Formats: sequence, C-alpha cells, structure tokens
Amino acid sequence: MCRWLSYIGEPVYLDSLVFEPKHSLVAQSLHAEEAKTPTNGDGFGIGWYGHRNTPGLYREILPAWNDANLQSLAHNIESGLFFAHVRASTGTGTSRANCHPFAFDKYLFMHNGQIGDYRLVRRELEALIDDKYYCSRQGTTDSELIFYLMLSFGLENDAQRAIRKAIETVESAMKRHNITAPFRFTACLSDGENLCAVRYANDDKPPSLYYRKRGKQVIVVSEPLDTESDSWIAVDPNQCLRISGDLTVSKEMILDVV
Amino acid sequence: MCRWLSYIGEPVYLDSLVFEPKHSLVAQSLHAEEAKTPTNGDGFGIGWYGHRNTPGLYREILPAWNDANLQSLAHNIESGLFFAHVRASTGTGTSRANCHPFAFDKYLFMHNGQIGDYRLVRRELEALIDDKYYCSRQGTTDSELIFYLMLSFGLENDAQRAIRKAIETVESAMKRHNITAPFRFTACLSDGENLCAVRYANDDKPPSLYYRKRGKQVIVVSEPLDTESDSWIAVDPNQCLRISGDLTVSKEMILDVV
Amino acid sequence: MCRWLSYIGEPVYLDSLVFEPKHSLVAQSLHAEEAKTPTNGDGFGIGWYGHRNTPGLYREILPAWNDANLQSLAHNIESGLFFAHVRASTGTGTSRANCHPFAFDKYLFMHNGQIGDYRLVRRELEALIDDKYYCSRQGTTDSELIFYLMLSFGLENDAQRAIRKAIETVESAMKRHNITAPFRFTACLSDGENLCAVRYANDDKPPSLYYRKRGKQVIVVSEPLDTESDSWIAVDPNQCLRISGDLTVSKEMILDVV
Amino acid sequence: MCRWLSYIGEPVYLDSLVFEPKHSLVAQSLHAEEAKTPTNGDGFGIGWYGHRNTPGLYREILPAWNDANLQSLAHNIESGLFFAHVRASTGTGTSRANCHPFAFDKYLFMHNGQIGDYRLVRRELEALIDDKYYCSRQGTTDSELIFYLMLSFGLENDAQRAIRKAIETVESAMKRHNITAPFRFTACLSDGENLCAVRYANDDKPPSLYYRKRGKQVIVVSEPLDTESDSWIAVDPNQCLRISGDLTVSKEMILDVV
Repeated sequence: MCRWLSYIGEPVYLDSLVFEPKHSLVAQSLHAEEAKTPTNGDGFGIGWYGHRNTPGLYREILPAWNDANLQSLAHNIESGLFFAHVRASTGTGTSRANCHPFAFDKYLFMHNGQIGDYRLVRRELEALIDDKYYCSRQGTTDSELIFYLMLSFGLENDAQRAIRKAIETVESAMKRHNITAPFRFTACLSDGENLCAVRYANDDKPPSLYYRKRGKQVIVVSEPLDTESDSWIAVDPNQCLRISGDLTVSKEMILDVV
Repeated sequence: MCRWLSYIGEPVYLDSLVFEPKHSLVAQSLHAEEAKTPTNGDGFGIGWYGHRNTPGLYREILPAWNDANLQSLAHNIESGLFFAHVRASTGTGTSRANCHPFAFDKYLFMHNGQIGDYRLVRRELEALIDDKYYCSRQGTTDSELIFYLMLSFGLENDAQRAIRKAIETVESAMKRHNITAPFRFTACLSDGENLCAVRYANDDKPPSLYYRKRGKQVIVVSEPLDTESDSWIAVDPNQCLRISGDLTVSKEMILDVV
Repeated sequence: MCRWLSYIGEPVYLDSLVFEPKHSLVAQSLHAEEAKTPTNGDGFGIGWYGHRNTPGLYREILPAWNDANLQSLAHNIESGLFFAHVRASTGTGTSRANCHPFAFDKYLFMHNGQIGDYRLVRRELEALIDDKYYCSRQGTTDSELIFYLMLSFGLENDAQRAIRKAIETVESAMKRHNITAPFRFTACLSDGENLCAVRYANDDKPPSLYYRKRGKQVIVVSEPLDTESDSWIAVDPNQCLRISGDLTVSKEMILDVV
Repeated sequence: MCRWLSYIGEPVYLDSLVFEPKHSLVAQSLHAEEAKTPTNGDGFGIGWYGHRNTPGLYREILPAWNDANLQSLAHNIESGLFFAHVRASTGTGTSRANCHPFAFDKYLFMHNGQIGDYRLVRRELEALIDDKYYCSRQGTTDSELIFYLMLSFGLENDAQRAIRKAIETVESAMKRHNITAPFRFTACLSDGENLCAVRYANDDKPPSLYYRKRGKQVIVVSEPLDTESDSWIAVDPNQCLRISGDLTVSKEMILDVV
C-alpha cells in the first residue's frame, strides 16, 4: 500500500502540501496512520503540470523523507495541478520505473492498492494493452499495467468508461483464475486540466480517500494532512470524484450496484 | 553495446580480472577499444558461483569505474566461475533489473548486442516465454528476454538447441516485421558447472569475442585484457565456445551455413 | 539512532543473522522495538573479514529491507567475524560515506548513538584527528569522527585506552560548549581477530546492547533477534564487552565511577 | 576535470542549453573535447534561480546522459539564471554532496579544476573556514572547500576580493607544502543577480572558458555548445568575467601580473 496526494487550484509551491503540513505526505512516508503498512519508504515521485505540453516528473528510489533533491524541487516548483506519491511495494522491485506517478503524453496516473495474486493474471492483462502503448511501459508493476489498460480502453475519449472497463477487466481475469485475494484500487488520474480520483475495492476494504475544498484549492489525499478532521470529506467506496479546471466537484458511482 | 568477461578455472579473486589487468573490464567501462561505443557507463554487474545452490549477484546503476562497493566485493570474493559485465544501454532504461548478468535458478546469462528495432518485435517475443518463467522477468531489456526465451526452449535439457532456437525465433520475428537493423548477439551462459559463449550476428558485424586458456584458468572476454595479443584467441563468427568444468574447450557452429 | 549486529565464531552465512531470524536486523530496519525511532531506513552496511588483509565492505543508501544486492551478498558471503548496521540518520545526509561500518586498514567500526549538538563541537573534535588519518575520512558523521579519534588515540596499541580517551575527549568538548544534550555511544570495533562492544551514555539512557553465546557463536546486537529472551544477556551501562578469537567473553567498566 | 555551463538572461527552459545543442553539456558528459578527460560521468547537478529566496538544486550521482529525471526537470524548469555541471572526479568519492553546484544561502558555485596534492593542504585550508560556515559543508571536495573559503573571506561584501584571497590562500598553502602539482580553477559564482566566472591556473594550463552574448542571453561555458566557433569568445587566462543583471559584460585580471 502507498500514500498519495493530488492538488488542483491556484498555483502553489509543492512543499506547501508535500512537506509543511503536520501530517504531510512526507511525514506519512515514515508514519502513515490509515494504511496497512505504516512505512512508505520504497521510492516516491512527483508529477506536475506547468507550461509545457507534458507534465514534469521526478521519481526516485530513496525514501521521500530522505531526499534533499525532493526538498529543493518541492520548494521551487509551483503548480496548479500536481501529484505526489510515496510507495510501499507490494512485491515488485524498487526502481524509478516502478515509482508513481506514471506519465504518458499529457496524462498522469498514480495508485494505492494492488491486484491480488498479480502473478496469476499479469500475462493475460498485459496481452490486452493496445499495440500503440505496449512498448511504452517501463516497469513491471500492476499499477502501471492498469494505467496502460485505461489508455488502451479509450481514456482520451471517455475517462469514466475507460476506468470502469479497466476495473471490470481486472476483476474478470481474477475470477477466471479463481483469485480470492482482493483487488484494491484507490487511484488518481489527470489530463492536465481535470482531476479524477477513484476509491474502489472488490472487498469491503477500499483504501481510504479524502478531499478538501477551500477557496481556490482542492486537495485529494489518501489520508488527511492535518487534524482538522471536519474539513476533510471522506470519499465513499465505489465512488469516483471529479474536479474540473474551475474546481467544480462532482461524484458518481464507478460500477452499478446490483 | 556492452563489454563483459567470464572466468572458469581454479578459484581467483574477482579483482584479479575485473580491476587489475591494464585493460581490465573496469578500464573498458571508460575506454573500450573494440566496441561501437567507447563508454560503458550505464550500470554493471557481477555474478559468481560459490558454495550455494544459486549464484551470487551484485548489480548497480552507477558506472563500474565509480563504485567503491564493487572494488571491495571484487577484492574479497573468490570464485572458480564468474561473470562480469559493464553496460552501454541500447535504449532501455538504467535500472538494476536491466543490468547483466541475469540470474534464474542456477543459471547466469549476459549479453553484448541487441535486437534491431526491438520495439517492433517485443510483444511477439514476450508472448513466447513459457508461463512458468513469465513473471520472473524483472526488467525490460531485449537481453533478458532472450535469456527467458532460451529457458523456455529447454535450456536445461539441451543448451545448444535452446540457444539456436532462440536465435532463429528472434530472426523469424524480425523478418516478419521486415526489420533490416541487425540482430547481434555475443553472449555467455552458465549452469554453474560449464560455460558457454556465443558470437553471432545476422550481419557481418558480430561483436568481438576472445578467450585465453593458461594453466587452470580460462578467460572469455569481449576484448583482451592486455596487449599480449598472441595469447588471446578470437572466436569466429557463428561459433559457440564451450568450456567444461575440467576446462576442456570445444567449438561448434551455431547455425548451419547454407 | 540505528540498529546493528556483530558476530564472531565459526563461519556462517551472513543471511543466517541478517535476514533469517524473526526479528532480524533487516526486520529491525522497518520495526525496531527498543530504539528511539522505529524506522532505520537511512542506508545500511555490512563489513566482514575473510581471507584478505582488510575487511570487505558493502554500504548502500537504500533501506536494507529493499536491496536485492544485500540479499544476494548476505546469502553468499560466509564469515567468522562480521558487522551489519541499519541507519537512522541523526541529521547528517544519506550517502554511502555516512553509512556504517567504517573501515580503516584492518579495523571495522560501527555505532548507534550521537554527540548532542554535534555542530558545536565538530570543528574542535576534527582538529584532534591525527594528521595521518585526517584525509581518510570520507563522510561527515559524528560516528566516523569518533572512529578517527580512537585511531588517533592509539587504537592499535591499547584499544581500551583509546576508547576511553575518545569518550572523555568528546565529553570535555561538550562541556566546554555547555552542551546539555546527551552523548550516547553504543558501538562495536574489531581488528579482525577480536571484537569489542561498548554501551555508554553520559545520561541514563545508553542505547541497548545484548549478546548471546551459544556453542562456537557469539552474537552482539542492539536488540535481540528473537524472543528467546532468556538467551540474550543485556550489557550494563558503562560496560565494555570483549570477545577474543577463542570466544572468551570478558567485561569491564569503561570509565571509573566516582 | 569537469564541464559546466551557466546562463544569465531572459528566462529559458534549461533543456534548451543542457540537452538540445549539438554539443550540449549532456553531450559533453560523454565526449568532452577540450577536457583532460573526455568522460564526465561522476555525477552532475543543476542549480537555478526562480521566485524563491534561495536557488533550486538538483544533484545526482548518475551520469547526466543517463538520468530521466534530469531530462524532465530541464524540460520543465525555466530560469533567467542557472548553472549546470557534469563531473569527472579528481579523486574524491561520488556522492550528491560532492556534486556541483554548491549552494549556500543565495549563492551558487561550481568549479572545474583541482588543487594539486589536495591531501597535503586539506587540513590547513579547512581550518581557515569561518566558524559560521564550518558545519555547512556537506562533502569532501576541494571545490566545496574553495567555495567556503570565499564565503569566509567576505564574498557578500566584495566578491572580487574574496575570490582573489581564496586563490592566494590556496597557493600559499601549496607553496608551504612544496606542492608542484598545479592549482587549476575555472569556476562560476552567482548571488542570484549577477554572474561571475573565473579562468585561472598557477601553471600555463587553465581549463578553458568561453562565453557568448546574443540578444538578451549570455552563456558561459567550459567549451562551446556548437561549432559556430566565431560566436564564442575565449576568456583569457587570469581573467574574471562579470555579467550583471542587465547583461553588461566586463572583464578584469584576477591577480596582478608581476
């Protein structure tokens, strides 16, 4: 399991969220409170949108609490839309290519969760990646795979549908292999203009997800950055949170409940 | 292109070959003479057989000339059968998982060369890896792929046949995609008892390969470690060199010449 | 604060102590129980004596729980006298040069503790390092400094005296600067034949230290490797534990109690 | 020896100079043409001024040609005053703390050159660092030392004088120790508003230094970024180049010629 945060709103320096809050993401890398594992020291990454066509990306295999470059970059980079992630590996190796966020073209993606017994379905799911994306993968994680499934399923045209289809596809494959370990998926996506966050699991333990809107700032997080607990709104299981460029927040169910 | 050396014989400290010769492998990491690229600074690795069932492995993304750990390990590890490799990436990223040698069970493999236009055949070739090996790959290189093809083609039962079939399979895939960029493959394999080295290309530029037998020591290298040029024997293109545990050297053609 | 272990006795593979016990040193890197900080993820190191004149050394800035090289090395390296250390930085940066153990000539040294308000005395203490050692320091930690003070104070001729003089020298400097933050020093030294461990602090909280002798094996640790609590003997504060090559264990006070 | 570039002028993306020119700094990291050593693969760094009080800093121990983070950062960071440096170690270890540029408060400093027989004068020169800077050093290079000497000698009040005094101090120490190896010093300094570059040696081989002014852009480099050789002006030995915020270029002798 991992911890992440994303931000959309008026431009802020990254360290105002990544380092400064009492329970900042970097603090969570050492002591997460709502995660299965308290330590998220298996690498980290930031991705941010600026004035270029594609987002900036800085990923490193060190623990986030321990990287002077991250401190300097977060102190100097300003952005109105960015992602930050601290990783606790669920089995795949620690390399930059396995650190979140993942970037493709204008998209950023990051994830907290895992595909249970991933080894059993990896081959089958990789086979579903569209040819035009197949060689762009750089790592070996289930998270990156899901991102490429979404791209292959038409992320550009209909994000909701692509997310839903990716979830259904993973679950179908798991069922075919009689996997009982859960599929957990609390993730965040952006195209550089809008932000979309999902809280999902096929058991009753979807990893936590919160957001807070204040003035011209919306923060979406794995767990709150401070103890002003009233101010953070928990996203329900099976919900997809969308925040548009004008900071309109909307929610909808990901999958139909039978 | 990369540079490598392997050794079989009476136990020696690794640094006697990796560091001490005038044109040692580490010297070649800065200034290779017979390689397409003189600098081999995109990571390195050593693999060695000792008293355990599986070989030891140390791989790092730094240049070999620059790693104090490698100096200390090579000075302190003694082995009668070991591999060392310095990497010049042909496009895939620098991560430990992409550094040679690759290990699986009792096998070690390392490679100098590349599959031309690898992106075009990667998917097709990955699909040929046997299920039982599919999830053991940790990186994204063409080299590691070929190793897993050989494993899938029965390396354990008939190494010669597995190597030949891997080469033919790669070439067939390249032909189907009308790839004119060459396939170059100068590689080394061991099961912990015997050593096998191959010099092959489907054009007329197979990467260089030499060996030297002196007393109870056989060294196989990309390029000679010193200027005693008489003492090094060049392996012919399309040849496979085999050295058994008792240091018997034999050669045969890899593919039949039409 | 950090965690460490040392071993002297019949040769064993390093992983039998570093990885395999339930509460192994690598387990302690994620969840130490008797340390001020539970996470010791700011680098690690191993040092071992083999057949060379100087010990082998492998130090890395990644967390120990996360390093495949460490797993392979510890599985393949056998030694009758070795050190292993996982680091929690007390302020200085994470670099290999700041990771323990430190090696000089035939000596290994590692440490858990710190000099309070080190910045105030660093200059004064560095000035006491003998000229012949001054340029051998590679890092900036208080731990490495203490090692070089001991070397400067005649470690080779009288280890007890050199340790005592280093402690007194640090305390004198701290007093001159009116430092009230404590000096804590639980450390381990070897010359390749004997092992010496010290538990000391100038307040009442010297970092914990235990040992166990069983058959031809003596293990010295920051905290027990398993829950057989009877088998581990706690070293008293202000005690120096010495284990000779024939595994004779002796103890003496470090400083006279007034 | 190393290679570096600095820029002052209208804001540009860093990659326009660091990556895009035919003979860019990253190209020079693999194949420098006017340097003693063609390969500059022992780490690199960038430092840039933005809207914060202190410059941003990103330093890494990998070769510059091999770091995806550097590519992304240089593509996304825009600055009107920045430094970039690729390192070829002259003996000290490869750690981030030993990579240039060095930052203190608002200052950036980088260097190509070395103090001959540095070990002989290190202690004496370190003793001249002012108390208020002594503990801010993070590494062990002669380059960082010279930076702290300049700070100690009043860089803030009179940069020319501080540079001159640092040079004279190094030379005096070398003379006292009868060092005949040369002192070479081609360096760059900034306070965030002005840029100052120096080309100096106490023998007749001061490392090369060039600049080019075009429109609202001034580039200062170890060697030209392209083959428009007319456009680059070589700085003379013993010269100090100053470029103010309004891009006025002035030159003066560093030391009086007797």
